[in-house]
Amino acid sequence: MSSSLAEAPCPTPIAARDRIVMGHGSGGRLTSQLIEERILPAFRNPALEALDDQAVLDLGRGSRIAFTTDSYVVSPIFFPGGDIGSLAVHGTVNDLAMGGAVPVALSLSLILEEGLPLADLERVIESARAAANAVGVPVVTGDTKVVGHGSGDGIFINTSGIGVVPDGLELGSAHVRPGDQILVSGTLGDHGIAVLAQRQRLELEGELTSDSAPLHGLAQALLVACPGVRMMRDPTRGGLAATLVEVASRRRLGIEVAEAALPVKDAVRGACELLGLEPIHVANEGKLVAFVPEDGVDAALAALRDHPLGRDAAWIGRVTSDRPGTVVLRTPVGGMRILDLPYAELLPRIC
Amino acid sequence: MSSSLAEAPCPTPIAARDRIVMGHGSGGRLTSQLIEERILPAFRNPALEALDDQAVLDLGRGSRIAFTTDSYVVSPIFFPGGDIGSLAVHGTVNDLAMGGAVPVALSLSLILEEGLPLADLERVIESARAAANAVGVPVVTGDTKVVGHGSGDGIFINTSGIGVVPDGLELGSAHVRPGDQILVSGTLGDHGIAVLAQRQRLELEGELTSDSAPLHGLAQALLVACPGVRMMRDPTRGGLAATLVEVASRRRLGIEVAEAALPVKDAVRGACELLGLEPIHVANEGKLVAFVPEDGVDAALAALRDHPLGRDAAWIGRVTSDRPGTVVLRTPVGGMRILDLPYAELLPRIC
Repeated sequence: MSSSLAEAPCPTPIAARDRIVMGHGSGGRLTSQLIEERILPAFRNPALEALDDQAVLDLGRGSRIAFTTDSYVVSPIFFPGGDIGSLAVHGTVNDLAMGGAVPVALSLSLILEEGLPLADLERVIESARAAANAVGVPVVTGDTKVVGHGSGDGIFINTSGIGVVPDGLELGSAHVRPGDQILVSGTLGDHGIAVLAQRQRLELEGELTSDSAPLHGLAQALLVACPGVRMMRDPTRGGLAATLVEVASRRRLGIEVAEAALPVKDAVRGACELLGLEPIHVANEGKLVAFVPEDGVDAALAALRDHPLGRDAAWIGRVTSDRPGTVVLRTPVGGMRILDLPYAELLPRIC
Repeated sequence: MSSSLAEAPCPTPIAARDRIVMGHGSGGRLTSQLIEERILPAFRNPALEALDDQAVLDLGRGSRIAFTTDSYVVSPIFFPGGDIGSLAVHGTVNDLAMGGAVPVALSLSLILEEGLPLADLERVIESARAAANAVGVPVVTGDTKVVGHGSGDGIFINTSGIGVVPDGLELGSAHVRPGDQILVSGTLGDHGIAVLAQRQRLELEGELTSDSAPLHGLAQALLVACPGVRMMRDPTRGGLAATLVEVASRRRLGIEVAEAALPVKDAVRGACELLGLEPIHVANEGKLVAFVPEDGVDAALAALRDHPLGRDAAWIGRVTSDRPGTVVLRTPVGGMRILDLPYAELLPRIC
């Protein structure tokens, strides 16, 4: 309507005022806004408001269980290193494992689009089966729905999961405090870039596969080596940045990250430069970030590196009482910049 | 390709050989085939193979929990008597309640299509909130994903649920035996016809709304009045017919139904005649069917009729050892016909 750039409204915010836009699913600011403004207020309760990846429920008789849910809409459904079936199992197992829970049972609910080749369905089911078997967790209940061509996209999967939380274990962002040290279990952004490369048919330097993997064993090893762990999280949608910003802002703590310490594969770094992304914003599906007390860092790092899924584990930063609510990246040349969430989507449908 | 009808293949079976068709989601034979041939074999375990609407898990320390999941893809998302939000809460509460479990927690996972009006989302969330509040069950964990325009259909919801199973309670098709009597808690087909009428803009005789309602209270009242109840089920997709055929065929028992005893509203009967459907095949979302021992029928029926959601409860038939695997409808004029599942879809996307 107007030819003046100065007068032109920024299109995303306007659109996002009254309709769902892709950015609402990005794991960025719009996702937070949607959830905090439109969904959470309806369902206020302590378990939900903790906004951890799993709710912990006390069932009486001393039993505490963790309960989690995720819907998977990754596109394409097959990608190097996995597919939507294994991803759906790993993702939900990981949400349980990050609460320190031992996975006990999964549900598997399918929304299939008319026209999906049955061969694709079988491949996805076989992949989910193999992933669940490898973890040793049974799929105990399920559901299958079909929608018409053009009302879905091949296959969407919801997996929900139940786990048993060991007696006495207390994990979560509520336990993080100044002086805690931050570890990651390996390289950042492998999953997001592998999916994106498949979707866009990008040629990467070297082989890159998704890191999709079940983290229950790694998490248990970490908890044994360092019982004082404050919190674990698998940095999926929105990447490590989303986890750090969330902890800093919810707990009004400062977080300092040493940019040079972030482990990143060359193929991911190259693709990110090409695409204008930063690995810290890109999804992982087989990595954990752990907040540990200072006196537990050495034991924790050794335990992670001893495990096949943690060989590239690294210390990346610390929690401070300076600059509450802020994540600061210390750059290799001695500079400093604030790490923020992107407003809208960088990488839609990555999980 | 051929102009001869005799040579023309039946299109549904051919298409269904290598691709998903709408009938795979109908609750009819194709749905059973898909699940029994392509999904169950991958995940064999006793809890899943019971094929009840909920899995019962023993967590040790004497705690047994029920776990269930359902994805909702109903179209349209708003219909007389409810919407996809209340439906998703009621459906999952009912799956828990049919196992005799007391609902403890729900998860709520959204797949939103780009372009969905936020006002619609808010209306659905408010409806889910009100439904969960009325049951007294908290939504403790959730997830939100967004897919592009044309890759979804407004809003799909997965709700999973956890309930506590009272000590000593054993319910399920495994407990049904010859001589058991069959009750339904009210009129058949209200939900399916209400949704279909909204979708097709049918004018019905009189007002008809979905029966979508939470059955936990009704189920508890029934269990108190008649502790010998063998099995309860909410006959949703595929209607009462799907439940009866499944019990008869899985347990190799005969079931006889008195057609004249089936409670059906005039508006539903009229719409079914117009559409060539039978109410026994049409989905309900606020009704239960109960298998009870003969000496418990009077107490069970009285308890159902005493409850606001069971006022139209009726005896409809019995379990026999004749004709194992078969459901027989006795017609008002003394005839008899076999009740079977439709091959493919009658009513797509009804829940």
